[in-house]
Amino acid sequence: MDETVLLGHGSGGSMMRRIIDQVFMEAYGSDELAQGNDAANLPLPASGERLAYSTDSFVVTPCFFPGGDIGHLAVCGTVNDVATAGARPVYLSSAFILEEGFPVADLKRICASMAQTAREAGVRIVTGDTKVVNRGHGDGVYINTSGIGFIPQGRALGGDKCQPGDKILVSGTLGDHGITIMSCREQLSFKADLRSDAAPLNHLIEDVLKAAPNTRCFRDPTRGGLASTANELAEQSGVDMVIDEDAVPVKDMVRGACDMLGYDVLQVANEGKMVCVVPPDEADAACEAMRANKYGIDAAIIGEVRLSNAARGSRVTVRTAFGSERILDMLVGEQLPRIC
Amino acid sequence: MDETVLLGHGSGGSMMRRIIDQVFMEAYGSDELAQGNDAANLPLPASGERLAYSTDSFVVTPCFFPGGDIGHLAVCGTVNDVATAGARPVYLSSAFILEEGFPVADLKRICASMAQTAREAGVRIVTGDTKVVNRGHGDGVYINTSGIGFIPQGRALGGDKCQPGDKILVSGTLGDHGITIMSCREQLSFKADLRSDAAPLNHLIEDVLKAAPNTRCFRDPTRGGLASTANELAEQSGVDMVIDEDAVPVKDMVRGACDMLGYDVLQVANEGKMVCVVPPDEADAACEAMRANKYGIDAAIIGEVRLSNAARGSRVTVRTAFGSERILDMLVGEQLPRIC
Repeated sequence: MDETVLLGHGSGGSMMRRIIDQVFMEAYGSDELAQGNDAANLPLPASGERLAYSTDSFVVTPCFFPGGDIGHLAVCGTVNDVATAGARPVYLSSAFILEEGFPVADLKRICASMAQTAREAGVRIVTGDTKVVNRGHGDGVYINTSGIGFIPQGRALGGDKCQPGDKILVSGTLGDHGITIMSCREQLSFKADLRSDAAPLNHLIEDVLKAAPNTRCFRDPTRGGLASTANELAEQSGVDMVIDEDAVPVKDMVRGACDMLGYDVLQVANEGKMVCVVPPDEADAACEAMRANKYGIDAAIIGEVRLSNAARGSRVTVRTAFGSERILDMLVGEQLPRIC
Repeated sequence: MDETVLLGHGSGGSMMRRIIDQVFMEAYGSDELAQGNDAANLPLPASGERLAYSTDSFVVTPCFFPGGDIGHLAVCGTVNDVATAGARPVYLSSAFILEEGFPVADLKRICASMAQTAREAGVRIVTGDTKVVNRGHGDGVYINTSGIGFIPQGRALGGDKCQPGDKILVSGTLGDHGITIMSCREQLSFKADLRSDAAPLNHLIEDVLKAAPNTRCFRDPTRGGLASTANELAEQSGVDMVIDEDAVPVKDMVRGACDMLGYDVLQVANEGKMVCVVPPDEADAACEAMRANKYGIDAAIIGEVRLSNAARGSRVTVRTAFGSERILDMLVGEQLPRIC
């Protein structure tokens, strides 16, 4: 195999065939990929189920970081988005935009990581695409994944379903991914002890739904962090949300880094955390279910949904340790580009 | 709205919200996009149908060209790939990787083009993503689309179904897209008279399937051209294919450009053409059906499938006007990078 990615690997000819066979098929070949048709031909579930469908492109830099890499992220991100609909993720697509000169060994490492994460999540990569751009017109590797899942009959989760009195939960510590990436880029000294939290959370979501069947919605607080997620949900449902600052789990090192750098940890990206909103009588069960999953051991109830003042519209506030409340806005501008 | 793309448009915060609302929703807003959940929640068809699923990233340069633009291409390419499975394409995802500084007016033009092509094809864009990379790490705009279609019960098309005696058809003139893009880049004088053929071909495929229900397979001869497509199909089916050079429709101007530049037109990319393989007794009907569609007026029967010599494996040859046969190989290396 060639040592670096060449323009011919995106040609549609024999060199593209070679990279497909020796890199992609080798890592995560499925029957559908092996068939070599332009579209995968796949079974559908029994009628009564619905379809969950999502897409994400990944441009994270650096493409390898403590706790993961762009391939791991590309599978986790889409699996988690599909799972937020209460779906079991089943099929993934995977499309690469490679820059001429990217090391094939790195590409293989990324693909192996995608294969491993897909296995853990129980999804199969069934269709793909490879493009190569000339040197200087990309940044090593960009990956798009899209994902398909099936939603069991009767499940209707959505960001518009939050009701006053509901509890807000998060599955673990916030800010780990964003601060890890930032510290890699800036070569800050605390990076050795930090790892990205990127993880596939579809099994955790299933666990929560078993314990708390009336869960209103899930959302993963990626770019924009909890601040964006809470504001989106509050607006979709036309409600207020109050976050109890002391209840939000944050690692000391992440809190320290945020203080030092002037970031609000509630606006920092996460890639392996899930926010969920549940009726009050199911909140403890949901939290217990999260804590019993390896990706949810630090789960906590962090706030509640309140009636919104119709005149001013929905609002998210943070209740501080001193009992005061401050408004939690969505991120304005960009804190940390290319976090995912 | 801002005049150029800024890093904050990919932040997950309020600026991203703005570009989503003012550009993407404005152009092709669907109910599912408007709901603002991480995954679209969609109905499935009655049981008995199967799923067709495909993905493609688009990195074409320039992003506007005679006959289309990257947005038009991004919808056509995925619609056509899904349709090759005999599916009716229904849902699309759309994910942008934008370079900081890209003009928002150009982005709006691209999105309007996507909306128009999606309407023509009868598909809806139901989920999306926006990433922004810093200046110098992209090339204006890259788009990934993935697509979902449903395959009626009983249809089982595939590149492995070609049989000796079958006829090979193409829906129109070859090489138009590749030569158009090349002439744009090189600013060759003939470009004024050439246009990309990019078009959504799902309706043409349905027309053929009505007229020729035993059609073996469809494939669009994009990167690598007819040469790659024929070699792929021959190998998948374990057969030989013979292409009749004189029967292949090629515009004079495209033929002239290929002669001048040393390209084999059979290896040049097309974005609005379909190759199909049909049993001999349905070939005329399939060709008539193509010609009755506005995208198939130059359709022709261009060759046939033959028994392969088991010892040497499948092979594609071209029968020249003088009666001799030459081997038609897949493209080796890269002729023209970033054609789609």
